Amino acid sequence: MLFSKVAHHLDYDLVGDDLELNSMNELALALPFELTFAVGKKYSTSLSSSNSNAFLISSDLVEHLPKNASYIICDNVSLSMAQATKLFAPKLIDFQSPHAEIGDESYIDTMARIENGAKIGSNVTVMAGAYIGSNVTIKNNTIIYPNVTIYRDCVVGANCIIHSGTIIGADGFGFSHTATGEHIKIYQNGNVVIEDDVEIGANCAIDRAVFNSTLIKKGSKLDNFIHIAHNCEIGEHSIFVAQTGIGGSTKLGRNCVVSGQSAFSDHLDIAPFSTFTARSGVTKSIKESGGTYSGYPLMEHREWRRLQGKIAKLN
Amino acid sequence: MLFSKVAHHLDYDLVGDDLELNSMNELALALPFELTFAVGKKYSTSLSSSNSNAFLISSDLVEHLPKNASYIICDNVSLSMAQATKLFAPKLIDFQSPHAEIGDESYIDTMARIENGAKIGSNVTVMAGAYIGSNVTIKNNTIIYPNVTIYRDCVVGANCIIHSGTIIGADGFGFSHTATGEHIKIYQNGNVVIEDDVEIGANCAIDRAVFNSTLIKKGSKLDNFIHIAHNCEIGEHSIFVAQTGIGGSTKLGRNCVVSGQSAFSDHLDIAPFSTFTARSGVTKSIKESGGTYSGYPLMEHREWRRLQGKIAKLN
Amino acid sequence: MLFSKVAHHLDYDLVGDDLELNSMNELALALPFELTFAVGKKYSTSLSSSNSNAFLISSDLVEHLPKNASYIICDNVSLSMAQATKLFAPKLIDFQSPHAEIGDESYIDTMARIENGAKIGSNVTVMAGAYIGSNVTIKNNTIIYPNVTIYRDCVVGANCIIHSGTIIGADGFGFSHTATGEHIKIYQNGNVVIEDDVEIGANCAIDRAVFNSTLIKKGSKLDNFIHIAHNCEIGEHSIFVAQTGIGGSTKLGRNCVVSGQSAFSDHLDIAPFSTFTARSGVTKSIKESGGTYSGYPLMEHREWRRLQGKIAKLN
Repeated sequence: MLFSKVAHHLDYDLVGDDLELNSMNELALALPFELTFAVGKKYSTSLSSSNSNAFLISSDLVEHLPKNASYIICDNVSLSMAQATKLFAPKLIDFQSPHAEIGDESYIDTMARIENGAKIGSNVTVMAGAYIGSNVTIKNNTIIYPNVTIYRDCVVGANCIIHSGTIIGADGFGFSHTATGEHIKIYQNGNVVIEDDVEIGANCAIDRAVFNSTLIKKGSKLDNFIHIAHNCEIGEHSIFVAQTGIGGSTKLGRNCVVSGQSAFSDHLDIAPFSTFTARSGVTKSIKESGGTYSGYPLMEHREWRRLQGKIAKLN
Repeated sequence: MLFSKVAHHLDYDLVGDDLELNSMNELALALPFELTFAVGKKYSTSLSSSNSNAFLISSDLVEHLPKNASYIICDNVSLSMAQATKLFAPKLIDFQSPHAEIGDESYIDTMARIENGAKIGSNVTVMAGAYIGSNVTIKNNTIIYPNVTIYRDCVVGANCIIHSGTIIGADGFGFSHTATGEHIKIYQNGNVVIEDDVEIGANCAIDRAVFNSTLIKKGSKLDNFIHIAHNCEIGEHSIFVAQTGIGGSTKLGRNCVVSGQSAFSDHLDIAPFSTFTARSGVTKSIKESGGTYSGYPLMEHREWRRLQGKIAKLN
Repeated sequence: MLFSKVAHHLDYDLVGDDLELNSMNELALALPFELTFAVGKKYSTSLSSSNSNAFLISSDLVEHLPKNASYIICDNVSLSMAQATKLFAPKLIDFQSPHAEIGDESYIDTMARIENGAKIGSNVTVMAGAYIGSNVTIKNNTIIYPNVTIYRDCVVGANCIIHSGTIIGADGFGFSHTATGEHIKIYQNGNVVIEDDVEIGANCAIDRAVFNSTLIKKGSKLDNFIHIAHNCEIGEHSIFVAQTGIGGSTKLGRNCVVSGQSAFSDHLDIAPFSTFTARSGVTKSIKESGGTYSGYPLMEHREWRRLQGKIAKLN
């Protein structure tokens, strides 16, 4: 995608050399030829040290651009970014890819749809009604139960079990907003990567990343109705009990245990070996590992128990 | 459906002329030849001014009937109403309708089921495992991801995106109850109407109306696991974050923002531009627009924050 | 399955006669030739009176075994039990069973998968995208909406309605844990039994039992997004409003009413005719029938209302 074509789509002028862009990415991770974006003085330092050479920025950031950068000055960077993501969105189905590769001893029901470009390992089971999108990878010995949906470009590790009704790789929930209150879709061009030995219960939803990957690490176990938003990272051997939701970009360390109907805000960092009792509402990062927490607002479990006693005495 | 046939099914006598009934409807909306119902003196005024001419009523309401009405006096109007809805329920699948119409440039996977009578616009994508029920309308440019289910008679607007696992038009949750504790189904004979530019995440459920339509207005965006009950009306450009539920017949104005795991009781009226933080529990209507609310019981957000501080100090 | 083969798989020695085992079961219910397990002195009495003759036990329980028992002494009984369940897990699909039997007047969409051994009664509707697993029974007049999944060996009664996206019989969420924090699957070898006249909304999940059956009794009605964990027992004519979850092995008596977003811990016993208002969090058994409860921690509804008033006054 030529940067000049992006500029034309956004109806702005491109400043600097035209570039052949590969993709989009967030500022901290963008490589050369990955279009990125920044708005406001607080990004001046990370902007000046960015590895990218293609930017959508607010006018006050021009002086902080790295040398030889090409850029577009936008009135509303967030909105222009959203509009640009559409240009980088892959097709829903990649008919041009070669036929799917299916490993030895795998069983694929004739009522499952396997799109082109999929790579399915050996001894994999894909049951009726499952959908395996374009260029999806499924590694050895994994079981995909009926009516599972895996969107294009996602990766499921070896020895995984994905129960029926679970959706892997639907779009993360991301929009920019116009002055008149419409919501403009930020196309979610990343994917989901599920490592080995993960089991996911019935009717879960693991959203694809806006850029890069939503990641479920090795050995984690999810009960039914778990919502994992875009760009989350779930540590090894974590446990999520039913009807729990994790907000976008939140990262949990290994061996966290999250009880039922809990929820996490977005952009949190949770220390490993943290335990959360039922209906915890987590809105702040946790730095120290090994704690047990409860309540909303969240507090240490012992404190929460004591507080409930105090509250009961009000009556 | 002859009114006399309804009377026979309910095992009651019909008073007045026999009528050919078209459907059923609630008292306030019923037109002539739409069977409606009322129980108790508080409905005497709306009964006397009803446009309908066919009623199921409690005996104390006979004197308030409009002139020339036909009616049945029921011991338990709610129960008789439920039993009557069954007679008006359409078949699960309408085999008699003509073959579905598919617009230009649309892609329908051969593993999707499109029932007769469906009307699909141009440039629509219907992926594998999707179910498009009898007489469903899907307008131009809309994307139906794999394993979406759209029940009969529902309407999806243009430029919509419906993610996998979402169910549009399943029966609303409505029952009448017998004296011995059984629950008698109120057949849900309405539909769902989704306007243009709506995006619905993975594994949502938007229930069909008992009569008339459940309505999602233009530009609204729903995250994953959103539950919208029968006869709700969601205003334009609303935002619902994951795992939120809206009770039956509740109406939200435009540009409401509802954060994750929130819930609304049924039969509420919520002013436009209202914002609800995570896990709000809304049990009363809101008249003034533009407020921000939290907690269960619900209160203004600032008040809730202050209260949480006070509660923490109890410990 | 020979007990000696189990011992070999667990890498332990078998003490006593080799036996041909039929299955596994919990201690209180195990019959002869059903492998069972116990750990810790508190099980000494139930162990000595067990009807089984095949045990995985901790070393301190040897003296409490019934006469002539065969057994394996395990360092970590829970872990060995989990490893043993894998040996008793049936295949995902039973290709050897005879073709499904379909009763008179039933409609099975050609896009539904009916596995071998299924028994479908008369006047049943199975719509497109539904999956009916091996040896599933569906009784007369039941409606299975599109994209429903019923795992192998489950039973659905007569006159039931199962809405789209609902998953019946996915694995319960059960794991044993290693010293280094991995989770070892306890294979869920039981099933789900749904009695007559049950309606289940869209996108629900009713998990199969680890041993024996998860049971939904006659006439119960479930709204959307209901989570019923393994080995639950739901009494007759119960009502569950949307987004409610019930923890493993919890039993509710008849005619309970559970409002939206409520949750129950596991292993509870709830008296019949109990009512729970929205978002109840139930962590203790309830012995007296007919009460109304609210809150988390749970209390009587009247008490909860009074307490909310007191809390509001803190502000």
